[in-house]
Amino acid sequence: MLTQTIVNRLKEILGEKNVVTDKIGMYAYGYDATLLSGETIGIVFPTTTEQVVQLVKYMNEQNIALVPRGAGTNLSGGTIPTDQTVVINFQRMNKILEIDTENFVAVVEPGVVNFDMQQELNKKGFYYPPDPASFKASTMGGNLGECSGGPKCFKYGVTRDYVLGLEVVLPNGKVIQTGGRNFKSEPGYDLTRIIVGSEGTLGLVTKMIVRVLPMSPAKKTMLAIYHKVEDASQSVADIVAAGIVPTTLELLDNLLINSAEDACHAGLPRDAGALLIIEVDGQPEDMDAQVKTIEENCKKANVREFKVARTAAEVDQLWLARRIVIGSVSRIRPSYSLQDITVPRSTFPQAVSGILKTAKDFDLKIGIMAHAGDGNFHPLVIFDQRNEEEVDRVHKAEKSMCELALGLGGTMSGEHGIGLLKKQYLGLEFKPITIDVFKKIKRSFDPTNRFNPGKITDI
Amino acid sequence: MLTQTIVNRLKEILGEKNVVTDKIGMYAYGYDATLLSGETIGIVFPTTTEQVVQLVKYMNEQNIALVPRGAGTNLSGGTIPTDQTVVINFQRMNKILEIDTENFVAVVEPGVVNFDMQQELNKKGFYYPPDPASFKASTMGGNLGECSGGPKCFKYGVTRDYVLGLEVVLPNGKVIQTGGRNFKSEPGYDLTRIIVGSEGTLGLVTKMIVRVLPMSPAKKTMLAIYHKVEDASQSVADIVAAGIVPTTLELLDNLLINSAEDACHAGLPRDAGALLIIEVDGQPEDMDAQVKTIEENCKKANVREFKVARTAAEVDQLWLARRIVIGSVSRIRPSYSLQDITVPRSTFPQAVSGILKTAKDFDLKIGIMAHAGDGNFHPLVIFDQRNEEEVDRVHKAEKSMCELALGLGGTMSGEHGIGLLKKQYLGLEFKPITIDVFKKIKRSFDPTNRFNPGKITDI
Repeated sequence: MLTQTIVNRLKEILGEKNVVTDKIGMYAYGYDATLLSGETIGIVFPTTTEQVVQLVKYMNEQNIALVPRGAGTNLSGGTIPTDQTVVINFQRMNKILEIDTENFVAVVEPGVVNFDMQQELNKKGFYYPPDPASFKASTMGGNLGECSGGPKCFKYGVTRDYVLGLEVVLPNGKVIQTGGRNFKSEPGYDLTRIIVGSEGTLGLVTKMIVRVLPMSPAKKTMLAIYHKVEDASQSVADIVAAGIVPTTLELLDNLLINSAEDACHAGLPRDAGALLIIEVDGQPEDMDAQVKTIEENCKKANVREFKVARTAAEVDQLWLARRIVIGSVSRIRPSYSLQDITVPRSTFPQAVSGILKTAKDFDLKIGIMAHAGDGNFHPLVIFDQRNEEEVDRVHKAEKSMCELALGLGGTMSGEHGIGLLKKQYLGLEFKPITIDVFKKIKRSFDPTNRFNPGKITDI
Repeated sequence: MLTQTIVNRLKEILGEKNVVTDKIGMYAYGYDATLLSGETIGIVFPTTTEQVVQLVKYMNEQNIALVPRGAGTNLSGGTIPTDQTVVINFQRMNKILEIDTENFVAVVEPGVVNFDMQQELNKKGFYYPPDPASFKASTMGGNLGECSGGPKCFKYGVTRDYVLGLEVVLPNGKVIQTGGRNFKSEPGYDLTRIIVGSEGTLGLVTKMIVRVLPMSPAKKTMLAIYHKVEDASQSVADIVAAGIVPTTLELLDNLLINSAEDACHAGLPRDAGALLIIEVDGQPEDMDAQVKTIEENCKKANVREFKVARTAAEVDQLWLARRIVIGSVSRIRPSYSLQDITVPRSTFPQAVSGILKTAKDFDLKIGIMAHAGDGNFHPLVIFDQRNEEEVDRVHKAEKSMCELALGLGGTMSGEHGIGLLKKQYLGLEFKPITIDVFKKIKRSFDPTNRFNPGKITDI
């Protein structure tokens, strides 16, 4: 618990309303989007870099560590407060400082919501490619901390590919600038990208310079429905082999089609084995040829039905199911655990079989969705958290799926980070010597473990 | 000098012919593509990772540091041996281990020449986007160490965007794997990208997993000739503002047009103020519309002549001048110094004026070429190294151009690294606290300064 003296000083630094120490507040900020929870001793909401600097220095004096947080949509427990830590919430540093369309650059504070950013960019004919499923709530800073991806990664890459430069408050309270306004602005060691994906353990990002792109002049969205999930996965391989690089290749299996359909009545076929939402973008002149090639390849893989959305409303309709599917499973069972395993695309069919086998082995319901072009699966394990024995099977299945991905030459975490949740599996993916390098990097930035202690790795 | 005992042991580890200690060899490896030189005490050519490990351990025992090197095309002195160091040359680790077109992945040893890699990929309909001007000689490992770019960066990014995973021998002789076969294979701290661009100061890369792309089905190459360099720079802004993202926007000014023409007789107009080589790629259906938009925008900026290459031979002809221009200036003066300043694209005209002013201020001939889309200039300062007073003016001009770029919000080094040459200017671009972070990273990997000591920063 924070003493009244500390609370008073925090209020001096941050303003009365930017310090929360009541029980309900502290309870609320003990959670993120995982099943984990922790206890914080207070929540602070800085509004300027200078406040962050003062706060960091003061917390150092008091020997209190900070847990940075955006919207708390984190899926690996990266924003769960560990013991006796203060949550530093960046949601009130939410200004879009600049949109520079000449240089394809935007400058934002970390608390800007991804969706709000997209809206402002769209007005100027631009967009920011990384758009995780959480993008209506999640913040640019949170996306940075986890190196978030999203449906468009296959063609456009992940957060790391769009962060050009940063303002970072270090654990000693000093401020550095990394990178710049140009994707070539990174001589010396790549400080920008060591911060991206570091889950707030190395520095607190107070400003981001990101690369934005002009919106493509044309886009086509398609829905391919399959009898069998194996056919859908064959289509993915065939489309890519035909030289098409779609922006999006999203897969949902039968369990998740039905769950989404229950919730949103989008008119999806409940007896389908799987569906793919396929999107391509580019110049208007080349849309028809690409759609034709995709349709031919889907037919080759026994597609049951192939539709092209003709209107913006139809596009929204196709995306609706994908966007709501995670929440929809709460109609089936009260709890879910969303995995993030990623495999080389060519091993997609083996990964599907492996996930189905895991469901059977541990007698669990597991829905399969995937950013199929990236080989990035989000198996959705559905269960009841109140049933301890079932929770135990869920954890065993999680570990089994991590091993599955690693066995296929993949990774246990494609875009959700390590956090607290996957720290226990770090040794499955990395050799001790590599984890030792992680620790050395952490210690070189944060020798006294001030920022987000216990995440990614202990030191 | 190495003792005979050490030479004998090195020969045991690496094989007789992979250890060079004769005077001529040592002289040759004292240089790279800068004006700098140093003295090595021996050159070793490992052929396997295991040899690198044994070598690193043995050199540790002997307290001798290593300077890694590929083809030595380095433009910032990053491969210049500093005192009492052994050069470790990776040119004999030159196997392409795998080309996996299903997953868009290639696995190579660091000594593979970029051009050789492209040839093998092309046979399978693929390519590796980073292709620095040196690509016919420079190695994949060297490109990685400098985070090389090339003409296609504006659309496709730099080396960092294509390295997926690495095998790295650390200064303690341990081997780590970073990343994987997928662009999402990087949970935890981004070890891959802290190694990319680190100029061999943190670890020795012995294997690279890189992302390769299918060759675009169509490409168009254009030549736009201008009366004035200002008009060419206006075209760059206008083309991009029209929503076109060319793969290439290469600029040459009058001085370099004439220099190239003297050397290769490509038929370029000697009285032109500047030219742009413009290339777009994509689907065949969208080429005409893009070429038309580009032509319209060039005309708007008073283009004097606009040509589209109609045959592969014509494309080669257009590229010839650009590819040979650097060497060609030796006909004007015997020495050159190639700069690498990079600015936000919108400040391109100010940067051009600033470079012209620098030439005047220091009474030097400076040819301007640029990857114009990236705002990355390679001003080519032409002089005579034997004239000490002139060399002094060259150095002053170099510093002045670094300051110019930084004043415009850019960087002193877009794609050539820091090395030895720009270490002296590090403080112009970075605050002491940032340089301190560089040092901490270096020390966390290499506390006893074993790998490429004195490059980027001293510790």
